[in-house]
Amino acid sequence: MAGEGRPHVPSLWQPLWPLLWEEAVRRALAEDLGRAGDLTTDAIVPPDLVAEARLVARAAGRIAGVAPALAAFRLLDPSVESEVALPDGSDADAGATIATVRGPARAILAAERTALNFLGHLSGIATATRDLVAAVAGHRARIVCTRKTTPGLRALEKHAVRAGGGANHRFGLDDAVLIKDNHVALAGGVAPAIERARAAAGHLVKIEVEVDTLDQLDEALAAGTDAVLLDNMPLEVLRQAVERARGRAITEASGGITAETAAAVAATGVDLISAGWLTHSAPALDVALEVGG
Amino acid sequence: MAGEGRPHVPSLWQPLWPLLWEEAVRRALAEDLGRAGDLTTDAIVPPDLVAEARLVARAAGRIAGVAPALAAFRLLDPSVESEVALPDGSDADAGATIATVRGPARAILAAERTALNFLGHLSGIATATRDLVAAVAGHRARIVCTRKTTPGLRALEKHAVRAGGGANHRFGLDDAVLIKDNHVALAGGVAPAIERARAAAGHLVKIEVEVDTLDQLDEALAAGTDAVLLDNMPLEVLRQAVERARGRAITEASGGITAETAAAVAATGVDLISAGWLTHSAPALDVALEVGG
Amino acid sequence: MAGEGRPHVPSLWQPLWPLLWEEAVRRALAEDLGRAGDLTTDAIVPPDLVAEARLVARAAGRIAGVAPALAAFRLLDPSVESEVALPDGSDADAGATIATVRGPARAILAAERTALNFLGHLSGIATATRDLVAAVAGHRARIVCTRKTTPGLRALEKHAVRAGGGANHRFGLDDAVLIKDNHVALAGGVAPAIERARAAAGHLVKIEVEVDTLDQLDEALAAGTDAVLLDNMPLEVLRQAVERARGRAITEASGGITAETAAAVAATGVDLISAGWLTHSAPALDVALEVGG
Amino acid sequence: MAGEGRPHVPSLWQPLWPLLWEEAVRRALAEDLGRAGDLTTDAIVPPDLVAEARLVARAAGRIAGVAPALAAFRLLDPSVESEVALPDGSDADAGATIATVRGPARAILAAERTALNFLGHLSGIATATRDLVAAVAGHRARIVCTRKTTPGLRALEKHAVRAGGGANHRFGLDDAVLIKDNHVALAGGVAPAIERARAAAGHLVKIEVEVDTLDQLDEALAAGTDAVLLDNMPLEVLRQAVERARGRAITEASGGITAETAAAVAATGVDLISAGWLTHSAPALDVALEVGG
Amino acid sequence: MAGEGRPHVPSLWQPLWPLLWEEAVRRALAEDLGRAGDLTTDAIVPPDLVAEARLVARAAGRIAGVAPALAAFRLLDPSVESEVALPDGSDADAGATIATVRGPARAILAAERTALNFLGHLSGIATATRDLVAAVAGHRARIVCTRKTTPGLRALEKHAVRAGGGANHRFGLDDAVLIKDNHVALAGGVAPAIERARAAAGHLVKIEVEVDTLDQLDEALAAGTDAVLLDNMPLEVLRQAVERARGRAITEASGGITAETAAAVAATGVDLISAGWLTHSAPALDVALEVGG
Amino acid sequence: MAGEGRPHVPSLWQPLWPLLWEEAVRRALAEDLGRAGDLTTDAIVPPDLVAEARLVARAAGRIAGVAPALAAFRLLDPSVESEVALPDGSDADAGATIATVRGPARAILAAERTALNFLGHLSGIATATRDLVAAVAGHRARIVCTRKTTPGLRALEKHAVRAGGGANHRFGLDDAVLIKDNHVALAGGVAPAIERARAAAGHLVKIEVEVDTLDQLDEALAAGTDAVLLDNMPLEVLRQAVERARGRAITEASGGITAETAAAVAATGVDLISAGWLTHSAPALDVALEVGG
Repeated sequence: MAGEGRPHVPSLWQPLWPLLWEEAVRRALAEDLGRAGDLTTDAIVPPDLVAEARLVARAAGRIAGVAPALAAFRLLDPSVESEVALPDGSDADAGATIATVRGPARAILAAERTALNFLGHLSGIATATRDLVAAVAGHRARIVCTRKTTPGLRALEKHAVRAGGGANHRFGLDDAVLIKDNHVALAGGVAPAIERARAAAGHLVKIEVEVDTLDQLDEALAAGTDAVLLDNMPLEVLRQAVERARGRAITEASGGITAETAAAVAATGVDLISAGWLTHSAPALDVALEVGG
Repeated sequence: MAGEGRPHVPSLWQPLWPLLWEEAVRRALAEDLGRAGDLTTDAIVPPDLVAEARLVARAAGRIAGVAPALAAFRLLDPSVESEVALPDGSDADAGATIATVRGPARAILAAERTALNFLGHLSGIATATRDLVAAVAGHRARIVCTRKTTPGLRALEKHAVRAGGGANHRFGLDDAVLIKDNHVALAGGVAPAIERARAAAGHLVKIEVEVDTLDQLDEALAAGTDAVLLDNMPLEVLRQAVERARGRAITEASGGITAETAAAVAATGVDLISAGWLTHSAPALDVALEVGG
Repeated sequence: MAGEGRPHVPSLWQPLWPLLWEEAVRRALAEDLGRAGDLTTDAIVPPDLVAEARLVARAAGRIAGVAPALAAFRLLDPSVESEVALPDGSDADAGATIATVRGPARAILAAERTALNFLGHLSGIATATRDLVAAVAGHRARIVCTRKTTPGLRALEKHAVRAGGGANHRFGLDDAVLIKDNHVALAGGVAPAIERARAAAGHLVKIEVEVDTLDQLDEALAAGTDAVLLDNMPLEVLRQAVERARGRAITEASGGITAETAAAVAATGVDLISAGWLTHSAPALDVALEVGG
Repeated sequence: MAGEGRPHVPSLWQPLWPLLWEEAVRRALAEDLGRAGDLTTDAIVPPDLVAEARLVARAAGRIAGVAPALAAFRLLDPSVESEVALPDGSDADAGATIATVRGPARAILAAERTALNFLGHLSGIATATRDLVAAVAGHRARIVCTRKTTPGLRALEKHAVRAGGGANHRFGLDDAVLIKDNHVALAGGVAPAIERARAAAGHLVKIEVEVDTLDQLDEALAAGTDAVLLDNMPLEVLRQAVERARGRAITEASGGITAETAAAVAATGVDLISAGWLTHSAPALDVALEVGG
Repeated sequence: MAGEGRPHVPSLWQPLWPLLWEEAVRRALAEDLGRAGDLTTDAIVPPDLVAEARLVARAAGRIAGVAPALAAFRLLDPSVESEVALPDGSDADAGATIATVRGPARAILAAERTALNFLGHLSGIATATRDLVAAVAGHRARIVCTRKTTPGLRALEKHAVRAGGGANHRFGLDDAVLIKDNHVALAGGVAPAIERARAAAGHLVKIEVEVDTLDQLDEALAAGTDAVLLDNMPLEVLRQAVERARGRAITEASGGITAETAAAVAATGVDLISAGWLTHSAPALDVALEVGG
Repeated sequence: MAGEGRPHVPSLWQPLWPLLWEEAVRRALAEDLGRAGDLTTDAIVPPDLVAEARLVARAAGRIAGVAPALAAFRLLDPSVESEVALPDGSDADAGATIATVRGPARAILAAERTALNFLGHLSGIATATRDLVAAVAGHRARIVCTRKTTPGLRALEKHAVRAGGGANHRFGLDDAVLIKDNHVALAGGVAPAIERARAAAGHLVKIEVEVDTLDQLDEALAAGTDAVLLDNMPLEVLRQAVERARGRAITEASGGITAETAAAVAATGVDLISAGWLTHSAPALDVALEVGG
């Protein structure tokens, strides 16, 4: 193979295969164009007019979603060309150009809103993640997202979290076992729940269990869990939990994590800090399309 | 027809036809279940166990999205039954029960996250809208959303805005003409842009034009626009613009609208206040599923 | 932007974005090819044979649907090339070449019927529209189509009407309000129906109401309707209705419009004449594919 | 099996399995409802109002398409109930009730146009077929349709032809061999074309060949074709062709068949008469929905 | 037309139009990539590494499915290039290179399994067919497959049978009539069943009937069936059946056909031998991807 | 929750949610019905005839796929009722009734082949798995399948393996890391490959690595892999490998596993034995539909 010798560049923010998200862009375009297309542009813009436009950040932030944004233009008109200035995972200053597109003015104006909706939404998630990652700098804790994602956009949102420097928790109900309080109650305890899961799960499936007390933690560790979710524990209890689990299970803290509280949580030595709001409540980054050379 | 005599109940918050959004719920379920389904629940919960659970608001807010949330359970297992306590458009106190579901415990646990993701996202939009509507109470201004929506969820988000007491702007590029600065520049002025649009548009299509100055406003009014978008105008200029347009065109203010600034904008007498962040940046409402009688 | 200075060419007959109709062509191809493809062509035509063929009009008419017709060949085999001689909106004499295709003979023969079915159907609509437009020449009335379209082909049929020189009415139930007799009966009169619609509709949504009598017309005008649909009125009554509505609402006549009756209706001064049969009953234009250089 | 003894009722006009056409109804509903649904009905009709309505024929004709028409109501709201008065294949007088629906008034009004578009289109085809069948009564000739169908509706249109008393030709390119002039030219004659087809086709695939002259007919019969398509032959030549083919191949006449010319063509003794206009140009039957008990 | 003069090359193993099977490849890729893509490759392989790889046969066999296998790479990344060494219908020795691909190493590794699953499955069918065809060499009998195919892959499997030298029976329930024992019982005999079918079927639809005894065979021949399915008959009875049917109907033998028994069955002079296991139970051919130039 | 006290029944063979596979059944039905449906049944079977039929095993085997088989009938006609005698995971004797269906005879006959194709294919996999599981009885080794599945049917085939008593390996490329020889070569060794994967993978993602030699095994164990794939090792080497890995990593043996060789492999003490042929080459179980009470 060519290129084998070159240094390995981790590619957390490489775009996913279009096969995994292009349909979502197509749906969004259809949602905006309706049956009749862009009435305004069709009435005003000559069909043969060629334009150049820049996708710009109006506020500073971490970029994610350049690929689906550019796909919006290309799917509408394959003759639109583009150049990326700030790929996913880059930090943009306010006013920075993220990418440039050039092609039929009608296509550029008609796809504008769809492109911006992807780019703003995903960059908002990346920016919030980046800030939370920065808040725990110097600690071992990694920031992870959850399954509290926007319906239909999970793969793209998980990617945006990686572009922000975070890591991903489960992608869905089928790629790991996460035993929550309802499961524990139904199984009659932490240990029997873990046992049932171990018996049923494949050999490459890890098991994590949510524990509320140190006693439950001991039970989970004794039963051989791979990871423990320490939900809403007071800092001092969390510290003890992390201590007990050290070397025996991965520890994850969750509940009420914000940029303000994250450092103190990270100081307990926990391995992972998860925050659902990164994907369900991060405000969009303000991005715009500026037409003209 | 039966029932013809009864008083007319406006139904802004009636759920849309499932035909318009059920596919989005199906996609979200598939996104969460993957190929193998809910590993945890399948391992721990007996297949014939029947459970009852409540969808509850953990924080106070305006509810929207009950129908797609309940559809998540029903689409996974048609035998799940449900009862709605707080329909879309209701205000929930923290702790309030929104709806109850009863059926196979496996289906209830497997659909939980999908249901909550819809309910939390849409109720977040409704709550933000409600608060902005409250901020302009006593003024004529209506709060409206924009096309800055989450890809794939536009119809549901527009509905959530109505559930919050707001009104809807265009659903897409094809149901009205909205001439923006790029179009004005390409047409060579506000008036020629309006003329081109009038010539091309159907007789039931209204025309709105974005104006930045009072001169442009005069040009738009003279050209017979149906509505004007007054973007980012200082309050005093906005007041004059509203005055000039009175009785001649609908006026819409936009740009930097927050719960703090909305009242002052509304006090200018403007007809509509639009805010893109209602649909792209409103934080989700905290909702949860509580299992057990 | 380049090209800004050139004169504006109205583009009523520009093809819609393929995103809006390409799936319909794909479905039609699949419908014709079934599981086993073109048995006859596969048996008889060598796979490497290259052919050239012309899409020709066997009867004179107005052309519409060239883009989906050519897409049929291209979707089957991307190597098929084409050249358009008579774009949508052109008038073809009997025998005229509409477009030329060149590529693998198997693809050209296998896609022939699908291409012709689109081209003949849409050109039939365009031709009927053109003739009705010609019948009202010299009058202010524009010819418009309705929602009485062929299931699955609305966007293309609306486009064909524009290619014939007509204009489009509503594209669907969601882009304007059209109050019909059933709605009037349910609301308890024309005025309350208009009021309910005004209260519920967005600010860019126009309202049209169907009236059967001059009294109803007066009620509609007083309630501030944007347009009135004057259905099946005798010519003399229609003339009075147009007179009363002048300057107050757009007037639309419908009911039994044919090439023979249209001129008399137009002579009343009505703004619009609508005819459902343009889209549901116009005979196809006779088009064919002629193979050979 | 129960019911085995009862007389066999041919069921040419039984509805096809919904699996084969329900998606087309769903698409048509989505096409009409757009993103926002029925603005007019939502604004005016209370959500809990129940209505009854009748699908009526405004002109006399042969009915086809009752199943997809009723499915439009049911797919929008499963609580709509219906009763069929005139099933597919029945003759309706002007004013006759075809079916009755009862359910939420909103659903009935919102699905009305979709239902009527299917019913009118398909009944138009059935009516035209019925009339052409009547024109050849007393002769052996059966009336058959072609592949000149409306894109996306082939299965339903083929069914409508059967409801009109006609028979179906090929459903697509893959269920029989039909050698046309282009194929003959490419193969270097009628006989080699038939031979190639015979060699490639499965044992249950019949072969038909288009012939223009009696010499070609002789060549086709000698090569053992199953059927011959006698296209645009003068009546006297057609008569001779039928005579020569008797007992050796099925004979089909095509080209310029109308209700006026069909009897003379049938009098030649030909087995089949095909007419493409039955599916591409038959005018819709005028059908309407009448609301109210 | 160019190329008209060249000798006709039968193309039984030409790939079908991608329109007919590409969606199946896309589904298979999505099935393997899930939401997060190829975790292993993304972690280890640099995004800009270019690789070359060969699809090789690890065992000797007849090749089928090269087109869908190569499409797996191309659909994942359009920049992957390929060259075919052994097209469908070729015989490969163990170790032979079937095709070569060159492009981004990530795409090649991520699509590897999908490509191999198509190629191995379809080549397995082709190989089994080839061997059965060889077993009857010298006899008139052709080997045909049945409708006992793998759900979702029928068109491709039918094509693989042709690549193996076999022929295809019905593609589905709609392209010919095949009367089985249940139908005969319901109709009250072989003759009435054939009569009902003849009355209902189109003129290009052939009729085959399953018979268990020589008496039923006589009844079928007298009723004018096109073909007879002689199921599980002892060899001597089969020989008599073939004799009686000679010149009157096509004969097909089925039931327990293996490479060992086929020659004796063929020796009866039967026209066709059908074997369901070719498509439902043929073992996959062992194929692999070898990376590196 | 009701039923909480009852003993936990492991449900490895419970049917997956229909949401995950129903579309595959729908596609298979459409594949068989084509455009025109079941010509034979429509011609011969009266539409109102009600029938009862049994799905029977013609050979002994382990059953899987009852749910999709029954769904074929139900999706074609919702009025078909069914009763399951032998659920997935049961052993059937030759002649045993697996399930009974009752409903319109036309639906039962038209869906027959689709139902049997699912049931035969999946039961074939379950039967082969059961036999391989039996071959290693008494050893700790579990039988697992691979990603060598039939395109489009992975979830159902993985379920069939569980019904046979086996366990599942990865469902796709995205639910665990499996480092193969190509990855090792690209990373420059086993250890760096594991390190890269550890750095990139989420905390619930396990890592398995393929090793060919004991040296590579040592390197993998030192790098902390979760599992090792011991591919095609001679028995004696395999035994040593299992010994070294004990307590440090899960061991999986693969390569040339058959019912004959499995016991010897299992005797090495390996944890898992994987066999791709279970899903790509297991012969279908012979199943049939018997009509009549």
